[in-house]
Amino acid sequence: MSERPPKPPRQECWDRRMELPLAVASLAYLAGYAVRVLARDHLPRLGVDLCVGVVLGAWAVFVTDYVVRLRLSGLHPLRFVRTHLLDTVVLLLPLLRPVRMVALYDRVQRRRGQPRLGLYARVMVYSGLSVSLLGFTAALTVYHHEADAPGATILTFGDSVWWACATLATVGYGDVTPVTPIGRTVAVGLMACGLALLGAVTGSFSSWLIQAFTREDEKPGNGERPPGDFPGAS
Amino acid sequence: MSERPPKPPRQECWDRRMELPLAVASLAYLAGYAVRVLARDHLPRLGVDLCVGVVLGAWAVFVTDYVVRLRLSGLHPLRFVRTHLLDTVVLLLPLLRPVRMVALYDRVQRRRGQPRLGLYARVMVYSGLSVSLLGFTAALTVYHHEADAPGATILTFGDSVWWACATLATVGYGDVTPVTPIGRTVAVGLMACGLALLGAVTGSFSSWLIQAFTREDEKPGNGERPPGDFPGAS
Amino acid sequence: MSERPPKPPRQECWDRRMELPLAVASLAYLAGYAVRVLARDHLPRLGVDLCVGVVLGAWAVFVTDYVVRLRLSGLHPLRFVRTHLLDTVVLLLPLLRPVRMVALYDRVQRRRGQPRLGLYARVMVYSGLSVSLLGFTAALTVYHHEADAPGATILTFGDSVWWACATLATVGYGDVTPVTPIGRTVAVGLMACGLALLGAVTGSFSSWLIQAFTREDEKPGNGERPPGDFPGAS
Amino acid sequence: MSERPPKPPRQECWDRRMELPLAVASLAYLAGYAVRVLARDHLPRLGVDLCVGVVLGAWAVFVTDYVVRLRLSGLHPLRFVRTHLLDTVVLLLPLLRPVRMVALYDRVQRRRGQPRLGLYARVMVYSGLSVSLLGFTAALTVYHHEADAPGATILTFGDSVWWACATLATVGYGDVTPVTPIGRTVAVGLMACGLALLGAVTGSFSSWLIQAFTREDEKPGNGERPPGDFPGAS
Repeated sequence: MSERPPKPPRQECWDRRMELPLAVASLAYLAGYAVRVLARDHLPRLGVDLCVGVVLGAWAVFVTDYVVRLRLSGLHPLRFVRTHLLDTVVLLLPLLRPVRMVALYDRVQRRRGQPRLGLYARVMVYSGLSVSLLGFTAALTVYHHEADAPGATILTFGDSVWWACATLATVGYGDVTPVTPIGRTVAVGLMACGLALLGAVTGSFSSWLIQAFTREDEKPGNGERPPGDFPGAS
Repeated sequence: MSERPPKPPRQECWDRRMELPLAVASLAYLAGYAVRVLARDHLPRLGVDLCVGVVLGAWAVFVTDYVVRLRLSGLHPLRFVRTHLLDTVVLLLPLLRPVRMVALYDRVQRRRGQPRLGLYARVMVYSGLSVSLLGFTAALTVYHHEADAPGATILTFGDSVWWACATLATVGYGDVTPVTPIGRTVAVGLMACGLALLGAVTGSFSSWLIQAFTREDEKPGNGERPPGDFPGAS
Repeated sequence: MSERPPKPPRQECWDRRMELPLAVASLAYLAGYAVRVLARDHLPRLGVDLCVGVVLGAWAVFVTDYVVRLRLSGLHPLRFVRTHLLDTVVLLLPLLRPVRMVALYDRVQRRRGQPRLGLYARVMVYSGLSVSLLGFTAALTVYHHEADAPGATILTFGDSVWWACATLATVGYGDVTPVTPIGRTVAVGLMACGLALLGAVTGSFSSWLIQAFTREDEKPGNGERPPGDFPGAS
Repeated sequence: MSERPPKPPRQECWDRRMELPLAVASLAYLAGYAVRVLARDHLPRLGVDLCVGVVLGAWAVFVTDYVVRLRLSGLHPLRFVRTHLLDTVVLLLPLLRPVRMVALYDRVQRRRGQPRLGLYARVMVYSGLSVSLLGFTAALTVYHHEADAPGATILTFGDSVWWACATLATVGYGDVTPVTPIGRTVAVGLMACGLALLGAVTGSFSSWLIQAFTREDEKPGNGERPPGDFPGAS
């Protein structure tokens, strides 16, 4: 939502042309990984190879896009990495890429001149979509690394989804928890998302209340009772 | 609290006439389900049949209301479903319907010209009522599906209420947790309510503080100490 | 902090005269209960009787004060109960009374004309004091009812304090949890306090940030960078 | 961020001259303690002595600084302790001192005239840095005191970090929890940090949303839809 400096025309052109391929590659990556993880016991040898191929192919698309954008920007590689930190992280952890599609959806809608949603609706839709995608991805990754670990409590994908939900809501029952280093690292990332989600929900409600109060305050015949007293504060 | 476009007069008339029957049916549904679940071991055959009858009868009222409103709106069914998503969800999960009565209470009070509560009091009363109803409903449903499940930790209705409270407050002890798929799905819904409750409490307090600060700021002789320094921030 | 209608002079006089005795009785009640609970195995027969006497005496003071105030108000008893709901609750659960002393402290300080703390400092001091008192009281009560319960995990007063802290912070480890109905009821009350505490902390920080931002916005030479872009929002 | 009264010139001079030594001593203290705790089984006798020496040396620097500042201030010792409460706490718990370096970093940057980050970026960077340092310190301390305790569940430093993360996010799985009094005391402090972190994240998001809404409100051609309706509120 911030205004960046205008990009050079060739870069702009490349970005726009790559939108669709990148979105397809993102979904292919996620789908390939999901099939590989979820159907691992029932997948024939060929299916496994196919999944791995799709995943690697999608990754190749990401790397190509990154390299071309680095070239077009005309920046020194190190400087490019520093100014495009998020892109670099997504390049190394491509499972996070589908989350970027939430921003893409916004950009496409704006270009088509469709009326945008209200601010609160947008915050809710974006945080809802992002959190669902992140939760699914985290559940996949944790299930992948935990299922065969000794002493694991996350034994099925259902357990993993259940754990991800309890973590995102910062409830954290602790009946199933990751035990491997990779699973716990993913869990820490998911906790950070949960904190951000809490911030988004709370912040939305808080700013909506403040605004509703301001509007009520400006109404003329609002004489019965000042609405600003906190109930119970005497 | 938003202003919707005015409804056609016949629909408005139907809505008003159905308010009472729908409220009665909502409570009958909840009561029938509660008796069925809580007294299942002590209920004679006739009592069970009676409960099931009440539940099905209430559901029939909901379906009739939905169909009539669909007709009166003059919209294509699919479009009606899309624009009345919440109504459709409530039709399929009628246990959620009593929560709608919280809004009804507000509408009735407004029509009678009674002085409305202040904004904070309303937010507190509504979120309190909604959360209590949702918590009770979730505790009922979870107890219904968990009590006989193998490996269950929620064995009594008391356990179920205890679990629902810990979930709504996002505390999540984890000493009793659902283990069946249905119980866990209900739990995820309850966690979302807990997040929203947290947002309501936090948002209320936050906007009250902002407003109290603004008021204090406008007082004339407030010279001892600027109230805006965060304690400990040096 | 709200402005109530002025009380009749005799009632005002009674309130002021009872301030000190009520504060002393509150502390005596809490102290008597604490000694009774914490030293129950090492207390001679006489000590137990003394504690019970102090507790009952303090309660008698509360009842007397309530009855006198009911008479002085000139209201119908039922109406008095309805308009003084908080007082009635505190009469039945006198362990909550010390929390009221936090408000007393404010009133005394204001009467003496001492400079009041800033708004944030006051919110922090009051919520800190209230939460400490409530946590201590809840830990006492839970320890009292849990320590001898079959299957209890809260076995020492240390466990009880540890559990109260984890509950107030909405962390909820679940390594020790109440198992008796009374313990769990107290726990639900403590969770509500935890939610309110979270709201106070978050609300304070949020309103402080909004105000700091407004101040920064009004500074003249603030040209380097608009401070309003959320980092990472592109 | 508050404006304090100007300090006497000699004190100002001492503060500036001690900035670097104190920062070095802080890091030396943390490093010495970390090596001592993490490598305790593999450290030769000499290494242990070296670590203890570094830790004690750093502490001596802190004490010297405190005493000199007490003298330069010209205040009565008791009054100095009361007005420099935070400094006194940090003197007794020097592990908290590296956190003060976050504030130092800001002061150095301001003196050099470098453009400061936006308000949100600063809040995020400071709370991120502080929370990382506090979490690491708490994990170290808890591991130090828990690892050999009977009945402990925190057996490795990895467990300790995992527990610290779950505590800071207020998730609190409870699969590993401290059992010793010291470990639990540290845990309560960490929970308070978690609450503050939650407040910072939520407050940032909330104030950003309020500001974004205000800006959107002031735009001229914003006629499609009022952005202030909360989705779902009818």
